[in-house]
Amino acid sequence: MIPNTNYQNLKDSYLFYNISQKIKAYLETHPDSHLYRMGIGDVSLPLCDAVIKALHAAVDDQASGATFHGYMPECGDPKLRKTIADYYHRRGVELLEDEVFVSSGASDELGDILDLFGRGKTVLIMEPAYPAYVDANIMTGNEVIHVPAGKENGFLPAPDSDITADVIYICSPNNPTGAVFDKEKLQQWVQYANSINAVILFDAAYEAFIEEAEIPHSIFEIEGARTCAIEICSLSKTAGFTGTRCGYTVIPKELVRGEMNLNQMWVRNRTTKTNGVSYIIQKGAAAIFTEEGQKQIHDNIKIYKENAACLMEALDKLGIWYCGGKNAPYIWMKCPDGMSSWEFFDYLLEKIQVVGTPGEGFGACGEGYFRFSTFGSPADTKEAAKRLISLLGKNKI
Amino acid sequence: MIPNTNYQNLKDSYLFYNISQKIKAYLETHPDSHLYRMGIGDVSLPLCDAVIKALHAAVDDQASGATFHGYMPECGDPKLRKTIADYYHRRGVELLEDEVFVSSGASDELGDILDLFGRGKTVLIMEPAYPAYVDANIMTGNEVIHVPAGKENGFLPAPDSDITADVIYICSPNNPTGAVFDKEKLQQWVQYANSINAVILFDAAYEAFIEEAEIPHSIFEIEGARTCAIEICSLSKTAGFTGTRCGYTVIPKELVRGEMNLNQMWVRNRTTKTNGVSYIIQKGAAAIFTEEGQKQIHDNIKIYKENAACLMEALDKLGIWYCGGKNAPYIWMKCPDGMSSWEFFDYLLEKIQVVGTPGEGFGACGEGYFRFSTFGSPADTKEAAKRLISLLGKNKI
Repeated sequence: MIPNTNYQNLKDSYLFYNISQKIKAYLETHPDSHLYRMGIGDVSLPLCDAVIKALHAAVDDQASGATFHGYMPECGDPKLRKTIADYYHRRGVELLEDEVFVSSGASDELGDILDLFGRGKTVLIMEPAYPAYVDANIMTGNEVIHVPAGKENGFLPAPDSDITADVIYICSPNNPTGAVFDKEKLQQWVQYANSINAVILFDAAYEAFIEEAEIPHSIFEIEGARTCAIEICSLSKTAGFTGTRCGYTVIPKELVRGEMNLNQMWVRNRTTKTNGVSYIIQKGAAAIFTEEGQKQIHDNIKIYKENAACLMEALDKLGIWYCGGKNAPYIWMKCPDGMSSWEFFDYLLEKIQVVGTPGEGFGACGEGYFRFSTFGSPADTKEAAKRLISLLGKNKI
Repeated sequence: MIPNTNYQNLKDSYLFYNISQKIKAYLETHPDSHLYRMGIGDVSLPLCDAVIKALHAAVDDQASGATFHGYMPECGDPKLRKTIADYYHRRGVELLEDEVFVSSGASDELGDILDLFGRGKTVLIMEPAYPAYVDANIMTGNEVIHVPAGKENGFLPAPDSDITADVIYICSPNNPTGAVFDKEKLQQWVQYANSINAVILFDAAYEAFIEEAEIPHSIFEIEGARTCAIEICSLSKTAGFTGTRCGYTVIPKELVRGEMNLNQMWVRNRTTKTNGVSYIIQKGAAAIFTEEGQKQIHDNIKIYKENAACLMEALDKLGIWYCGGKNAPYIWMKCPDGMSSWEFFDYLLEKIQVVGTPGEGFGACGEGYFRFSTFGSPADTKEAAKRLISLLGKNKI
């Protein structure tokens, strides 16, 4: 038996490993240092009270025969599916409850969903990108077409009608650049996808960070998206679920390719390959969508947005080009003085003990850029901003 | 874009849908009836106290900044991986901690793991079988070789050296038949797999129900298994986790095919395609392996085993052939009087309001057999056994 040889085409993923090795080495020679960590996109605030209460209540349900829950429906608790459809309705997007699938999180779903397409597909990925997009497609034996994004297009590339593809990844608000597609730009992609019979995988993990009213939260705000798009959502950043694990995926019933209905295919996939998401976790997730839960998570998001504002103010003062921050939890800055992204990483660590992520780790066209996550503690973020100004400013404070 | 056309080769899965439709129709015409449900393999007892306490404590951890946990390691909490390796050690099987992967449950893992093998493989499945084994392979485009099991071999087929395959499924204790492989029979399969370079997927979901000392709980009790087997385990039946979702998978470091190390491939798969299992759920799972947790889950298993004993006694009295029940939570009986499995289903529902699962639903060679789950309530199981004796006995009680 020869295993899946596509794995031999994967490059070793060194990004976060290299970062951790560099940090380790630094702390060995500077044991008393405090590091200002704004690298990895993990949240720092605890789960909100409404979720904690719902999780405890669900654990109690599992303690008594009268309220105990066994197997969950594979596509999600019908009540949670309705709750999520109602959340879309409040934002003007109409979905059927059985177009919403509860998942164990966006990263799991982004891997699993490729099964719908089979192998040997052509996949268009805008770069810089979340590295798992590329790796999951290499494992499947798909051909990846890299669409370079850059400063000249605000890291928001437009479709090229000379290129054709089966699957198109769009992440907006974007990881790592924080750039957001407006309705007009997204409309171009939807028209393009429909015209070439492709399917858009729309990663909406960061939609809760959008603050400008005209920026779409969902691709289903765009006309024509119901015949070409799957939307993959996460509660990880919205509600601090990185370690709790829950998300949801929307597959419209009009999404048909080659006479096959992708919604029905996903029902068949889930009922065959899973037994649903944990009862306890789904109860916790449902609490996010209550009035109380929404208020509490927006209080948390406000704190992360204050972190973003603080870093943006520092970069503005320094006159450094960046995008993101306003509608996204990531800030993507140009490294100063022509430094490479790893040179800038070393420089910040050595000089001011600030940790970010080198842009090169998100693909070749991320070289020369640097990502800050805004999920750190407010105190650390403030101090990091001050140190950035002090280090990079012409007039040191 | 043409989606995964393998889905067109799937048969519609009507088994549990047909059962639910028949029950619905019966209850419409008999609205006051109580049904004795021993069909679906879902547990009825609540989570044990040690698990409930650990789940509450983990939820509390998520409520405070000082104890909050974000992203978990993708392959599992290192402490839980060690705890599970220790559990094997106590039963005489030595594993490295990083040979143990924490999963969201066996059904999820049985679907995901096929990614290691790529497509177009030949897969050997003993029938009757859990229907998802076959369906997951059809979705992948693998060729399925059905190995028929029957009464003549005690539903425990031996390998046929004329057949070759890439992947071999073995489920012991078996769902649906409850049959168990002893060491000698399992040794034949391990030798066969090593000789043809195949990989065994050993489904050990029901190992905690084994009571005879000589029956192996793990394929790694068998010499040679470390070079040919992956073991997929579940806490669903062991600890009532059907709705809570956690399991584990063992991939030995010696498992190499075509110069590719399957343990390393799975690490790459998990780190690319998941963000690990929920912190809260992993903490609950860890409590199962404490002294207190082990005592409590064995108290629950004892109740299910008393259900099994009660049904076995009834079938013994009636002189009906069956297997399972002793080392498994399922009893697989021959339908009396040459009835087909669906005829027998209707007969039991109509005459004594007992619900089981028709053997035909697990593959053609399940025709003429019937499965009872022993996960129902003790009172219902006792009454069902009494009613079976009354209906099928020559000397009615």
